[in-house]
Amino acid sequence: MRVVVPYAASEPKTRLADVLSADERAAFAAAMLDDVLAAIRSAGHEPEALATAPVEADARVVVDERPLTEAVNAVLADAGEDPVAVVMADLALATPAALSRLFDHDGDVVIAPGRGGGTNALVARHPEFRVDYHGTSYLDHLEIARAVGAGVSVVDSHRLATDVDERADLAEVLIHGSGESYEWLKGEGFSLASDESRVGVVRE
Amino acid sequence: MRVVVPYAASEPKTRLADVLSADERAAFAAAMLDDVLAAIRSAGHEPEALATAPVEADARVVVDERPLTEAVNAVLADAGEDPVAVVMADLALATPAALSRLFDHDGDVVIAPGRGGGTNALVARHPEFRVDYHGTSYLDHLEIARAVGAGVSVVDSHRLATDVDERADLAEVLIHGSGESYEWLKGEGFSLASDESRVGVVRE
Repeated sequence: MRVVVPYAASEPKTRLADVLSADERAAFAAAMLDDVLAAIRSAGHEPEALATAPVEADARVVVDERPLTEAVNAVLADAGEDPVAVVMADLALATPAALSRLFDHDGDVVIAPGRGGGTNALVARHPEFRVDYHGTSYLDHLEIARAVGAGVSVVDSHRLATDVDERADLAEVLIHGSGESYEWLKGEGFSLASDESRVGVVRE
Repeated sequence: MRVVVPYAASEPKTRLADVLSADERAAFAAAMLDDVLAAIRSAGHEPEALATAPVEADARVVVDERPLTEAVNAVLADAGEDPVAVVMADLALATPAALSRLFDHDGDVVIAPGRGGGTNALVARHPEFRVDYHGTSYLDHLEIARAVGAGVSVVDSHRLATDVDERADLAEVLIHGSGESYEWLKGEGFSLASDESRVGVVRE
């Protein structure tokens, strides 16, 4: 099974601009990509990065300058009857066990929804299924699958539901993470901080 | 196995005050409690509500006015060697399948962490394990289990990780929910709304 990891090579993670500089965001995004690639490999698959520009990564890098949806759909069209997995590069909490639940699950289309209605990872085993990552893509993907007659299974995983986009998401990395992205945050002085309602992060 | 659902009977869900009145918050909290009780029953267990004051619920209600941690620890102390499950009342996305993964998992202590480091559901099968729900309780519970020599298993579930506390959490109910809490939100005019970054909710 081909396992692709889309990666925005320029100005990644803009919604972390309130806590990280542009260079820091690029370094943190690269650390998360490394973690995701390593987890996929430990789950028994050979990942490839699908990047918007040439990047250094511990995997084969395929460059496609087009927006996410178009680039992924080109992969799906190219695959035909062969299964394809698409795993987002900012799933810093992804473990081999969580990814194996996705990869090994039966179904024409298997989706790991993200918090807020996104689609953080999926497996497509139906030649007509296509993605649309705009808006509430999880619900859109259920509808697209239905329209082409593809059965859908959903993987219920907090680790795969947690894409790291915003400051509050950094707390999840500090609580549950263990790889390069965790070490990078610790090295940059981030630690957990509680207020009365929810746990967040502070930086030294 | 005793399955208790702690429930704050007075002024529940204060962090939803920006979108719901006090009466609405009480009604929504009651709808979520009903959903959780029904899901536990469908998973094959007879739930009981552990409420801070007498409430109407479709289950046996045990009243304990003390704060959450003290009330749950009284149940654990009373249980001795018998297993006890504790499931929060605001897990509007909980399904029988997700709860069965918790209830059926081996381990002295089985934890379903909540987003932000909370403990949304647990099973305790060790007579010395006690809870402490303040702060990052997930990490505290790992430490408490270690201190008493109890092995810990973690259930990786987006549904169980999603306690409904804030406006953004309502989107999860509209995306993944199906019970009384979903119907209540729809009936009150809530629907999904997207901006460029993340999906939220609007009210008619």
